Amino acid sequence: MTDLLSEVNSPDDLKKLNRNDLPALSEEIRDVLLKRISVTGGHLGSNLGVVEATVALHYVFDSPKDKIVWDVSHESYTHKILTGRKLAFTDPAHYHDVSGYTHPSESPHDQFTVGHTGTSISMAVGLAKGRDLCGRHENVIAFIGDGSMSEGEAFEGLDNAGAMSTNLIIVFNDNGWAIAPNHGGIYKSLAELRATNGESEHNMFKDFGLDYRYVADGNDVEKLVDVFASVKDIDHPVVVHIVTDKGRGSAWAEKDKEAGHWALPDKVYDEIQTERKEGTLAPDYDQITSEFLLKKIEHDPKVVVLTAATPGSALPPSFREKAGKQFVDVGIAEQHAVAAISGIGKAGGKPVFEVFNTFLQRAYDQLQQDLALQGNPATILMGGIAPGVARCDNTHSGAFGIAMTNTIPGLTCLAPATKEELLGMLDWSIDHAERPVVIVRPLRGVVSEDDLPLAPVDPPFAGDGFGEADLSYRTMVRGEKVAVLALGDMLMHGYDVVKALKDRLGIDATLIEPRIYSALDTATLDRLLDEHDIVLTIEDGEKVGGFGEQVASYYGSAHVHVLNYGANKEIPDLVPTDELMERYGMTTDQIVGDVESLLGNE
Amino acid sequence: MTDLLSEVNSPDDLKKLNRNDLPALSEEIRDVLLKRISVTGGHLGSNLGVVEATVALHYVFDSPKDKIVWDVSHESYTHKILTGRKLAFTDPAHYHDVSGYTHPSESPHDQFTVGHTGTSISMAVGLAKGRDLCGRHENVIAFIGDGSMSEGEAFEGLDNAGAMSTNLIIVFNDNGWAIAPNHGGIYKSLAELRATNGESEHNMFKDFGLDYRYVADGNDVEKLVDVFASVKDIDHPVVVHIVTDKGRGSAWAEKDKEAGHWALPDKVYDEIQTERKEGTLAPDYDQITSEFLLKKIEHDPKVVVLTAATPGSALPPSFREKAGKQFVDVGIAEQHAVAAISGIGKAGGKPVFEVFNTFLQRAYDQLQQDLALQGNPATILMGGIAPGVARCDNTHSGAFGIAMTNTIPGLTCLAPATKEELLGMLDWSIDHAERPVVIVRPLRGVVSEDDLPLAPVDPPFAGDGFGEADLSYRTMVRGEKVAVLALGDMLMHGYDVVKALKDRLGIDATLIEPRIYSALDTATLDRLLDEHDIVLTIEDGEKVGGFGEQVASYYGSAHVHVLNYGANKEIPDLVPTDELMERYGMTTDQIVGDVESLLGNE
Repeated sequence: MTDLLSEVNSPDDLKKLNRNDLPALSEEIRDVLLKRISVTGGHLGSNLGVVEATVALHYVFDSPKDKIVWDVSHESYTHKILTGRKLAFTDPAHYHDVSGYTHPSESPHDQFTVGHTGTSISMAVGLAKGRDLCGRHENVIAFIGDGSMSEGEAFEGLDNAGAMSTNLIIVFNDNGWAIAPNHGGIYKSLAELRATNGESEHNMFKDFGLDYRYVADGNDVEKLVDVFASVKDIDHPVVVHIVTDKGRGSAWAEKDKEAGHWALPDKVYDEIQTERKEGTLAPDYDQITSEFLLKKIEHDPKVVVLTAATPGSALPPSFREKAGKQFVDVGIAEQHAVAAISGIGKAGGKPVFEVFNTFLQRAYDQLQQDLALQGNPATILMGGIAPGVARCDNTHSGAFGIAMTNTIPGLTCLAPATKEELLGMLDWSIDHAERPVVIVRPLRGVVSEDDLPLAPVDPPFAGDGFGEADLSYRTMVRGEKVAVLALGDMLMHGYDVVKALKDRLGIDATLIEPRIYSALDTATLDRLLDEHDIVLTIEDGEKVGGFGEQVASYYGSAHVHVLNYGANKEIPDLVPTDELMERYGMTTDQIVGDVESLLGNE
Repeated sequence: MTDLLSEVNSPDDLKKLNRNDLPALSEEIRDVLLKRISVTGGHLGSNLGVVEATVALHYVFDSPKDKIVWDVSHESYTHKILTGRKLAFTDPAHYHDVSGYTHPSESPHDQFTVGHTGTSISMAVGLAKGRDLCGRHENVIAFIGDGSMSEGEAFEGLDNAGAMSTNLIIVFNDNGWAIAPNHGGIYKSLAELRATNGESEHNMFKDFGLDYRYVADGNDVEKLVDVFASVKDIDHPVVVHIVTDKGRGSAWAEKDKEAGHWALPDKVYDEIQTERKEGTLAPDYDQITSEFLLKKIEHDPKVVVLTAATPGSALPPSFREKAGKQFVDVGIAEQHAVAAISGIGKAGGKPVFEVFNTFLQRAYDQLQQDLALQGNPATILMGGIAPGVARCDNTHSGAFGIAMTNTIPGLTCLAPATKEELLGMLDWSIDHAERPVVIVRPLRGVVSEDDLPLAPVDPPFAGDGFGEADLSYRTMVRGEKVAVLALGDMLMHGYDVVKALKDRLGIDATLIEPRIYSALDTATLDRLLDEHDIVLTIEDGEKVGGFGEQVASYYGSAHVHVLNYGANKEIPDLVPTDELMERYGMTTDQIVGDVESLLGNE
């Protein structure tokens, strides 16, 4: 293998190479990516496919003067290598120096912090407009994949780009895949464009008012250099449609495009495989949910499960095959998904939309207008990449799901704490609720009713036959003086707090599992007033707009103190969970300390 | 004129007519619409244009078995007339019996309650999927205008429709207009389709995988009957592209498509014209904002004002003409608008996005991810169709803007109470803030600093030179025992409450204008503890997630009672403002009563 990369630390270095060196450089980079991802895990397929396109972009354009906007930015590893961050990919000691996404704080070559899909064209349109207002003349380039192109925001961006008459270059990276296979009508005409070498007159980009170029081999770096050079400084918007191999260079990722989209570190992957073989791998919530939904599907032809292009391990290929027409992948189109489940419910179907809460944010208006206002029966199973107060990229935080859904009138929002509750709530929502229900899927490890440190007081067992009467708080431990209301995934933390209150302050505290956060159980709250002076609320997400503030507001005229625990109003970026718990004052120590000082002040 | 309509009260009655009677019936209906709207006001142009299409749909299809979904549903008057609600259009005594939008509670012929744009295709896709799951075979029809087609949700729906292989009929009503002129690349290719009688191969519907029919004269009811009959019971999705005259039958609405989209009652219109002539019309916030923004534009080429197809009277044609390239209408595309202003700000421009809060809901994720997370300078001027606690359609409520923006970290959210504050904040945000700022435009009538019943205590005058130091609460009246925190538009109500507290309870209360709701002014809140036992918060919107709950939470461990006043968690539908104030316990009487009983309980 050549050794060109050692001399390349910036786009300027890159430009010193001969163009016929670029294929070899690309292979070197691909090799670096494979090695690094095998250790750190990360977006494998998307990054391997765009090595040549990235090299060509930086060879032709003058970043950061020229501005490249990476859609989702899970394909930005090569870009990072070429823009001063090579060490984070070549030196294991620095593997964790950079994030997996673009990040302006890392480099002026990164325009935006991006992790959601379909934003690049709109942001690039904005950069171009800002440039024009300021009288400058740099190139603005949006780089977007075909999977992202099903997103409403991307269409809106394309439509607006088509109305401009100024420099804007949209590189459309067509690898034929989203995370999972693409779904949507446009993918038929994209296939026709590929089949006709870009010649077909059935061309959605032209129909959106855009100029168009086609590159059949988007991994041919010299060809890409030619085409990018031909559109540099163009005076109107143009789409450069390039066809690339997702996962190129990894036999596994090329073959299994979906699994290869994102890879675990080899070591972790091997451990899981070993555990799987040995049968020691405990079922996780993905598996529990998956099995339950498949059973519902088998017993009732009206049940249908939807995903917006993130089936993940809860809805794996085997699930989809068995579910047949009772599974729908709408593509990356959360707005559509929420409107569609409203329609399905209205027409007599029983829809379940499984979605990460960070992506459900795309459908805030649809949750209110298209679904909740209609009152149609539908279930949203809202999970996350990570729980709320937990280490996570700032673009995928699970901290906002509860507050977001809580501000929407007409949704019944549930937060189960155990697997029995989760399945009981799901069963009720699918078969009996007759209205829109949001269920927050626990994310902090499977808890069964049997795992609870103490037998719940009232009701003693949750889950079996969950019904309307259960839309109320559950008393897990009956005590006095202090009541701890621990929502959903925070229940086990609540037990810890109760234990520490006993151990350190001698208080026999009450522990409540609220189960529902869209409405207050005022009967229970009123009852608590009799024997309690302090009420604590703990939730796994943003405090503002969340569960606890409502409790504080409700008790505003009462003689009880309320302490709300939850995430601060911020979007942390890869901060360790322990550090966040500490920062938010949510550790057991801190909470008990608060109670102690509050009692001391009385 | 014929008298056919008197015998038509349902789709069944309609089907008894000969098809050659349908043109005459359509003219009768048009006549009814013109008369009724001249008295009640309402969506004029959109309804006049689709009379024939609606007649033809109900002549051919069998609603409510066949399901028609009206996009936005501001074109559903003829549909209402033909489905049992004729009296609400022919008898002045019943003019207010029905809403201006579809409403399932009014009739089984209405599938959804709709007032936001671009939802029909997705909802129809859902109805079709639900039908298939249940094994039925009715037709599902989405009726959508060209103006709605720039909305991301509509594109997502179209893309998903294109992937289906079952009955779905999309009637695409192309009148060449949104509320204002259309903006976006697709409108070029739609023009080409019209110019080629639908023959052009540049056809976005086909590119989305859909079958296609074209009707050049969409006001030819007999032709429409033929085409609709030809697609009835079709086994795959099809688009029927019909070209109609917006405003047909009203000389004014045909000529001025934008003004004619929605009409005031003639009487009100005439009064305003008279006042305008006489120079007695006081400037409203639209005019005040408009003049200010125009001045900013004239003085700074970097300032740009954006709208998402709702320029309304704040950005009238005269404004747009003067602003030139410093005005952008992105079409109905709020997601794009928010992402674009982030890009504009990043590139050095000074964007101001004027938007109704009910439509800004479409961009919740973009507010968080594309804008706030980036921290790029941009101004969102968030107004409303109506204030929060006020009579409004359930699809256009202004009650959620504060809570929605409040849950998003990284936005500086301001709620001015006077016109001087509004302009001061705007000026600061555009020229100095260097971060994303949301300004809630007051909606309850123009208040000037000079109108305030008492001279503010600290700072004495707001507005001139608003700056960072002003991101804090403003003390309007200094008192003791009770502090009233009245946000934005609620300031004048706060004065009323303070006066009543004095008059009825002899309390010299403190009055605070918070000005900012995205963060607490903890210094002021702490100070209030010294001399106050009760803190009241009043805000013009939903309590959950709003300003007040945060105050209650902050004071959770303090010895002060907090009473939050704001809207209940509900979406009221055309409930009179007074009734809402009463329902929410927000009248001066109720608030003072609460204080009285709380003091009595001490």
